[in-house]
Amino acid sequence: MLKLLNHSASASARCALACRAFSTSKQNVGVVGLGQMGNHMANNLRKNGHSVVVCDVDPRSTKPHADAGSVVAKSPREVAELCDTIITMLPSTAIVEHVYLGKNGFHEALRNEHVLIDSSTIDPIFTKKLSAEIHNLGGIFVDAPVSGGAIGAKNATLTFMVGGKPSEFETVKPVLQAMGRNIVHCGESSTGQVAKICNNLALAIQMTSVAEAMNLGVKLGVDPKVLQGNHPYPGLMENVPSSNDYKGGFACKLTRKDLGLAVDCAKQAEVNLPLTFNTHQLFNMMVTSGGGDKDFSYILQFLKGKQ
Amino acid sequence: MLKLLNHSASASARCALACRAFSTSKQNVGVVGLGQMGNHMANNLRKNGHSVVVCDVDPRSTKPHADAGSVVAKSPREVAELCDTIITMLPSTAIVEHVYLGKNGFHEALRNEHVLIDSSTIDPIFTKKLSAEIHNLGGIFVDAPVSGGAIGAKNATLTFMVGGKPSEFETVKPVLQAMGRNIVHCGESSTGQVAKICNNLALAIQMTSVAEAMNLGVKLGVDPKVLQGNHPYPGLMENVPSSNDYKGGFACKLTRKDLGLAVDCAKQAEVNLPLTFNTHQLFNMMVTSGGGDKDFSYILQFLKGKQ
Amino acid sequence: MLKLLNHSASASARCALACRAFSTSKQNVGVVGLGQMGNHMANNLRKNGHSVVVCDVDPRSTKPHADAGSVVAKSPREVAELCDTIITMLPSTAIVEHVYLGKNGFHEALRNEHVLIDSSTIDPIFTKKLSAEIHNLGGIFVDAPVSGGAIGAKNATLTFMVGGKPSEFETVKPVLQAMGRNIVHCGESSTGQVAKICNNLALAIQMTSVAEAMNLGVKLGVDPKVLQGNHPYPGLMENVPSSNDYKGGFACKLTRKDLGLAVDCAKQAEVNLPLTFNTHQLFNMMVTSGGGDKDFSYILQFLKGKQ
Amino acid sequence: MLKLLNHSASASARCALACRAFSTSKQNVGVVGLGQMGNHMANNLRKNGHSVVVCDVDPRSTKPHADAGSVVAKSPREVAELCDTIITMLPSTAIVEHVYLGKNGFHEALRNEHVLIDSSTIDPIFTKKLSAEIHNLGGIFVDAPVSGGAIGAKNATLTFMVGGKPSEFETVKPVLQAMGRNIVHCGESSTGQVAKICNNLALAIQMTSVAEAMNLGVKLGVDPKVLQGNHPYPGLMENVPSSNDYKGGFACKLTRKDLGLAVDCAKQAEVNLPLTFNTHQLFNMMVTSGGGDKDFSYILQFLKGKQ
Repeated sequence: MLKLLNHSASASARCALACRAFSTSKQNVGVVGLGQMGNHMANNLRKNGHSVVVCDVDPRSTKPHADAGSVVAKSPREVAELCDTIITMLPSTAIVEHVYLGKNGFHEALRNEHVLIDSSTIDPIFTKKLSAEIHNLGGIFVDAPVSGGAIGAKNATLTFMVGGKPSEFETVKPVLQAMGRNIVHCGESSTGQVAKICNNLALAIQMTSVAEAMNLGVKLGVDPKVLQGNHPYPGLMENVPSSNDYKGGFACKLTRKDLGLAVDCAKQAEVNLPLTFNTHQLFNMMVTSGGGDKDFSYILQFLKGKQ
Repeated sequence: MLKLLNHSASASARCALACRAFSTSKQNVGVVGLGQMGNHMANNLRKNGHSVVVCDVDPRSTKPHADAGSVVAKSPREVAELCDTIITMLPSTAIVEHVYLGKNGFHEALRNEHVLIDSSTIDPIFTKKLSAEIHNLGGIFVDAPVSGGAIGAKNATLTFMVGGKPSEFETVKPVLQAMGRNIVHCGESSTGQVAKICNNLALAIQMTSVAEAMNLGVKLGVDPKVLQGNHPYPGLMENVPSSNDYKGGFACKLTRKDLGLAVDCAKQAEVNLPLTFNTHQLFNMMVTSGGGDKDFSYILQFLKGKQ
Repeated sequence: MLKLLNHSASASARCALACRAFSTSKQNVGVVGLGQMGNHMANNLRKNGHSVVVCDVDPRSTKPHADAGSVVAKSPREVAELCDTIITMLPSTAIVEHVYLGKNGFHEALRNEHVLIDSSTIDPIFTKKLSAEIHNLGGIFVDAPVSGGAIGAKNATLTFMVGGKPSEFETVKPVLQAMGRNIVHCGESSTGQVAKICNNLALAIQMTSVAEAMNLGVKLGVDPKVLQGNHPYPGLMENVPSSNDYKGGFACKLTRKDLGLAVDCAKQAEVNLPLTFNTHQLFNMMVTSGGGDKDFSYILQFLKGKQ
Repeated sequence: MLKLLNHSASASARCALACRAFSTSKQNVGVVGLGQMGNHMANNLRKNGHSVVVCDVDPRSTKPHADAGSVVAKSPREVAELCDTIITMLPSTAIVEHVYLGKNGFHEALRNEHVLIDSSTIDPIFTKKLSAEIHNLGGIFVDAPVSGGAIGAKNATLTFMVGGKPSEFETVKPVLQAMGRNIVHCGESSTGQVAKICNNLALAIQMTSVAEAMNLGVKLGVDPKVLQGNHPYPGLMENVPSSNDYKGGFACKLTRKDLGLAVDCAKQAEVNLPLTFNTHQLFNMMVTSGGGDKDFSYILQFLKGKQ
């Protein structure tokens, strides 16, 4: 498992508290995209004393935030008019492009004061282009995708992987600490996206490695309790997707999406990733045979022939 | 990483001490095979108060033990005549077969009192046959391969994965605690071998997953320090093989051997292990292109095209 | 496709007739194993003027041969007593071992005059051992597995891949020409088995390559008729398994068996076969998800997610 | 091998002659891109009676055509002004985009009479967009990539895989027959590209399958002559790249490019292509370890560990 996932909770929690105390200046913060993740992130910003402006195409997702006193903006452009700092948490490269550069997008109201943070997981090649464009228009931009899932978003224990200049990293760190515990500077623009993809490709392969070990070991008589902690064998642990019919967790179709981004990057960069390519195909098979919505630990059942 | 590798050191160390106190009856213990692992294991048995009888084809390996007061037996048969409890630590299935069942092997002197422990990593299908044969002849037999490497063998912190009846597990536990920290009962006969193979297949795949993440991430600008702790990138950590020209550690040809055992088991059991098969081929490629003696973290260099 | 499969029918048919005319001395020939293949082969030997002695554990399979005037032997030993030349066509390595070396096996009646021909597809490593043993006992032995399927067996158009000394090849050629069209000398003992395995691994990978091309091309609008001749797309051709619900043909579980033999050989010989290993796992997945009895062109449906 | 590669030469040659006789109206034809393929194609158009207008960024490639009486245009736009029918044979998607839609590109002079034929092998997703754009501007456009290599281009024996409306196919067929023997209608726009990619993914996998069969068989003693016709074993055949230090033929880096296009298409279309993904990685490994310029039959040497 990559270092990003292995943080010592208590140490970083202490650090996080200290850092938050340090960041006294509360500000207007925009949140565009109120899905499973963005919704919790907006709540945590508000709990942390920020004035939050929200924006989403679905009025049902903005309602609770309006009830909690936040402003609901009609467009990304209006968010950009009301806030200096904006966080986007969106499902695809195309939607990020639309929110930043489309009609009624941020670019129509961009100011030098703007600090734009994209926490979506998208194509790093596009991120690099977007970063160049925003910098040309005068704003600050970092990519800052997260790991930690819906639970991390709710509990403000996300890890943010940040790509941008060192000064930009220092600028965005305080606001990200309202939502996460580990704020990691990965390198120049787009390296946050790359780190996220690397993290997830390792995660998917490692889940598959554990599934293969379980698949072989249990079939040949090894007590499944011996083999592993956080694993895909149903009934061994509570509160994991494999004990709940593989509901919740990290859906196979999202695993496939992130492996697909890794495949794209590898081709572009001429890098060898044989297991990543193979694992992409395994998850593609799972999705095409109907398992796209199940947690990625469902790979064990797939390997057992239960498609 | 499988649970077997994630033990909390302090907790199990405390337990181990308690258990050792409990096992007061010291005895003659035979050790056949004094390679890198067996040598340390014999030393630890002696330090723990056992009278040790050693046996190896290479007189240079028995000399230090003779100097330390141990008896050197001329054959496995002689070991079986002198000791009730015998541990074998041998490099291949064929050699284990010879020591147990060949000319001048254990079987020629087998008694009901015998407790035979095979700590070699070998084919579980053969282990099952051997176990049946020994049980027919009247002795106790468990398979008990280890993880922890030469350092674990030296420091008596090995993990033993034990396959055998529950009563047999209780019988062998005290003597194994002289050499290891975690003594894990995996199930019936041969499941220790299977657990070891499962552990190592997951280990090899996970090392490859980290190598792929590093390969992609670093090429695309991510700071390698961000990506991982125990990893294959040279110069990032001291005291790991990747910082020492990939010397030491877990040799690629041994990784290939264990993946090969997993391939055999999977075919026999009709179990799907796609990444294991793929990873076996990657390590086979590394060996055929000259990297067999390097640590298995050399996979990163292989993926970078430096064969 | 390998050369073995590309023979020009007319040229070799002419040669075959000439050669048969040359081999005037008809003899007693034993056939052990009267499955789908062996049954036709015994018929063709009889049509060709040989006195045939048959042997099989299933009396229903020997009945028609008895009715046609052949002797039914009670054991392989009895076959060996009655015939100098014997052909075995058996389903597994273990059964071949039993027929040759087990109780009431050939070895109990072996004479210097014996010419033993094993046309089963089995483990070449065992074949090498068996060959050495038979030669020690004084007989002639060649491995001579076939390609061409049940239709080739019926029409006496099989290809025989023969492993043995050049003089042994010349000895067996005339009798094989009663059953096949191409009699190919592959090299020393066991190379017939190896050639068969190589042929079938290439066949399985090539079928998969065509399935992948069809899978992609048809999904993206290419007329399936454009893509291929002998292919896995249902309804395009008559008289192929894909147009008959994938019945008949080369069953997925047999494909998996032969790929498994290739995997064994590759491990033994330290040879890199990445696609073979991968394809073995694809066919294993098909079998474990219930497709074992379908023709190997079913790989297209598997790839389409219809498991 | 796909049907496209298995055409009967004599039958189609007769057909081709008949069709040419039918297409009496010789015309101005533009050829943009005078690389290894385009150069021969322009020559064959001229031999067939067409007035050829050529265009290439490299003056050395246009010189022989000027000497042979052809007009050399300064830009794609000028080609479009001079010719109704234009064939492009270019190395990448980006260059095709520039030639059609960039500054001084075709679009600046597009007329309803234009018949544009792209014979480059490029991304089918772009081809679909380009086709829509050209059709909007009023012209005819088909994609018509080729197989047959430099020798097929020289001898006018190429296979053209054409994507476009049936009426467009009929329109372009006569001019393509001046350069090729098989003119195949694959379906709607972009299916020519898809067919080419499917053809080449099958070709690369099949070459690898043969290499694996050779790698295993020869190591285990099978006479290499037995195994195959058009194969990667050096010294067995004359006039193949494997007998000429793997020079000439279909370069590994081009194989990788086409497999990469297949990977892109598969991801876009959510199609399973496990061996294609795996083979892409094998060829990527070959390129990253220095074998990019060798013929794709070099895969055998790569598998043998000679990187």
